[in-house]
Amino acid sequence: MRHAVIMAGGAGTRLWPLSRAARPKQLLKLFDGRSLLELAWERLEGLFPAERVWVVTSAAHAEAVGEALPALHTENLLAEPMGRDTSNAIGLAAACIAQRDDDATMGVFTADHLITPQDEFSAAIDLGLAAAEQYPEDLVTFGIVPDAPHTGYGYIQRGEPVGEGAYRVVAFKEKPSRELAEEYIDSGAYFWNSGMFAWRVSAIQAALQEHLPENAAILEELGDGWEQLGPEARREKFEQLEKISIDFAVLEKTANVLVVEMGCRWVDLGAWTSLGNLREKDEAGNVQAAPTALIVGGEKNIVVSEDADHLVVALGVSDLVVVHSGDATLICHREHEQELKKLAALRRERFEERFE
Amino acid sequence: MRHAVIMAGGAGTRLWPLSRAARPKQLLKLFDGRSLLELAWERLEGLFPAERVWVVTSAAHAEAVGEALPALHTENLLAEPMGRDTSNAIGLAAACIAQRDDDATMGVFTADHLITPQDEFSAAIDLGLAAAEQYPEDLVTFGIVPDAPHTGYGYIQRGEPVGEGAYRVVAFKEKPSRELAEEYIDSGAYFWNSGMFAWRVSAIQAALQEHLPENAAILEELGDGWEQLGPEARREKFEQLEKISIDFAVLEKTANVLVVEMGCRWVDLGAWTSLGNLREKDEAGNVQAAPTALIVGGEKNIVVSEDADHLVVALGVSDLVVVHSGDATLICHREHEQELKKLAALRRERFEERFE
Repeated sequence: MRHAVIMAGGAGTRLWPLSRAARPKQLLKLFDGRSLLELAWERLEGLFPAERVWVVTSAAHAEAVGEALPALHTENLLAEPMGRDTSNAIGLAAACIAQRDDDATMGVFTADHLITPQDEFSAAIDLGLAAAEQYPEDLVTFGIVPDAPHTGYGYIQRGEPVGEGAYRVVAFKEKPSRELAEEYIDSGAYFWNSGMFAWRVSAIQAALQEHLPENAAILEELGDGWEQLGPEARREKFEQLEKISIDFAVLEKTANVLVVEMGCRWVDLGAWTSLGNLREKDEAGNVQAAPTALIVGGEKNIVVSEDADHLVVALGVSDLVVVHSGDATLICHREHEQELKKLAALRRERFEERFE
Repeated sequence: MRHAVIMAGGAGTRLWPLSRAARPKQLLKLFDGRSLLELAWERLEGLFPAERVWVVTSAAHAEAVGEALPALHTENLLAEPMGRDTSNAIGLAAACIAQRDDDATMGVFTADHLITPQDEFSAAIDLGLAAAEQYPEDLVTFGIVPDAPHTGYGYIQRGEPVGEGAYRVVAFKEKPSRELAEEYIDSGAYFWNSGMFAWRVSAIQAALQEHLPENAAILEELGDGWEQLGPEARREKFEQLEKISIDFAVLEKTANVLVVEMGCRWVDLGAWTSLGNLREKDEAGNVQAAPTALIVGGEKNIVVSEDADHLVVALGVSDLVVVHSGDATLICHREHEQELKKLAALRRERFEERFE
């Protein structure tokens, strides 16, 4: 049977001050009142029945995730005591699915991106799952057809075709230089690495056993007794897991990887400017994602607020990201947005957990 | 007897969003927890007994003014039903003082400026009141010794001396061009017009009768029955008063004006940048007048907030004025600060009275 796993473990420091420790990026209702997590769930509705959709999130967010997704079955909500990166989130889900279904295929999905249109998405996922079923020992990745030489994404180099829209993977490439990214695009042989996957549960478990045997053993124990284990026991086991991504741990070390083409618009919502790119702009290129704001006499500003009772005024300023939340306001030049990670450290140093 | 009148009628749109219709500039506690009005009161404490200090303010602010100045005698708080500019604020105070004291001299003071040092201020005021007593038909202005060719102030051209630090006035000059201002400064014959005055009550009443006979008649009626008049009767009379400043109405039309030199540092708090100039700066020229803020990687910003529970972060931005209040946040380039008046109109058009 086909299962889906949504990975919803991110913290989202780059979307502070809307995203917080207790309210991570994927739960922010930034899209007509809906969150990225809700959108991720909705994308899967026609593809998987609710009883076979799983969500992996941190224990700190489990309650909020459950509230955001009323159709999610409680036993399919896997709350990690601490973040141990994607290899362990996936390994835990695989172990739990294996307990229930010893012949399962699983799709792995992110909750960090906007992906449209739905029909292209559904078709690619169906193709990827079919490939995983057809090649039961192979690992399938989904590759986004790139539309620009983006230097912030990883790339997948495709090789020989193995069917309609599916290829052997030649290599995974880390975030490239601008020059290299342009070469990739020109060659037509590269996809963006979407971070979404499809495989037989047995295949990913075998790969984890091969490349991360110690983690694999712990993950198997966790899967065996997940429902029965208390928070302390889960935490104790998680602490022993090596923290590593599925790309580093498995995919880049494995020969039998396929890539299925996904012809979707795929927008990473890692930062405020990427949100700005999705919104309607005024004639000066300003984006107002705030119910109550005035942007006067400047250009290319992004003003974000959730509070209709608070007026935000941007007067004669340009190229700013302004984000207002209940207990914090950020004013940031769009060129300095990447420094929000560094800011988070400084903020904790000065104010401890007050504004996290 | 000597009386003092503090004019505290300003609205202060240029200090929005801290200053509001219900909380005007002179009541903001921006100076170690004290307001401009409190500072104005304190400056007069050694010069006038409390029972002879009067405050003219708008009816809307009368309660707040009373709370801010516990030593102010209730009957000396003159609440105007509507603003009718300085000639009428002064005329009302003169009429009320005349009721109580038929041989009074009055000093007129503003609550919009920081004035230091105290001893220079006190000496000049004493000199001005003495001049008003010595020349009972003359009107005395106070002239600030200018330290820069400021184009935002009015100037007073002095003529022949009439005593220590006192001169006949040759002319009042409107806000000059930069060139003209430099000429004024170089000549050594000009003062900044401080907006503070001293005169016999009988002298200013005579001048009002001469130049504004209709206003003068109404003001006399108001003075006669001020305590007995109800809000409606006061409003009815105020509506008939022509709205005009004392400079336009009287001083610029009168020959017998003196100017007394005031060798004080005199800072107009008309705008955020002028507040910024008074505060300690960090090494990048940033001013943090906020209990909870982080200014990182930019320069010459002014960050103002009253709320210790709200974090304001300015990241990689420069030359901004950022002001956070409970229901509104302003982000403004310091070069565009003068547009706050224009903004007020737009704000009311879009949000009516919500953020006033």
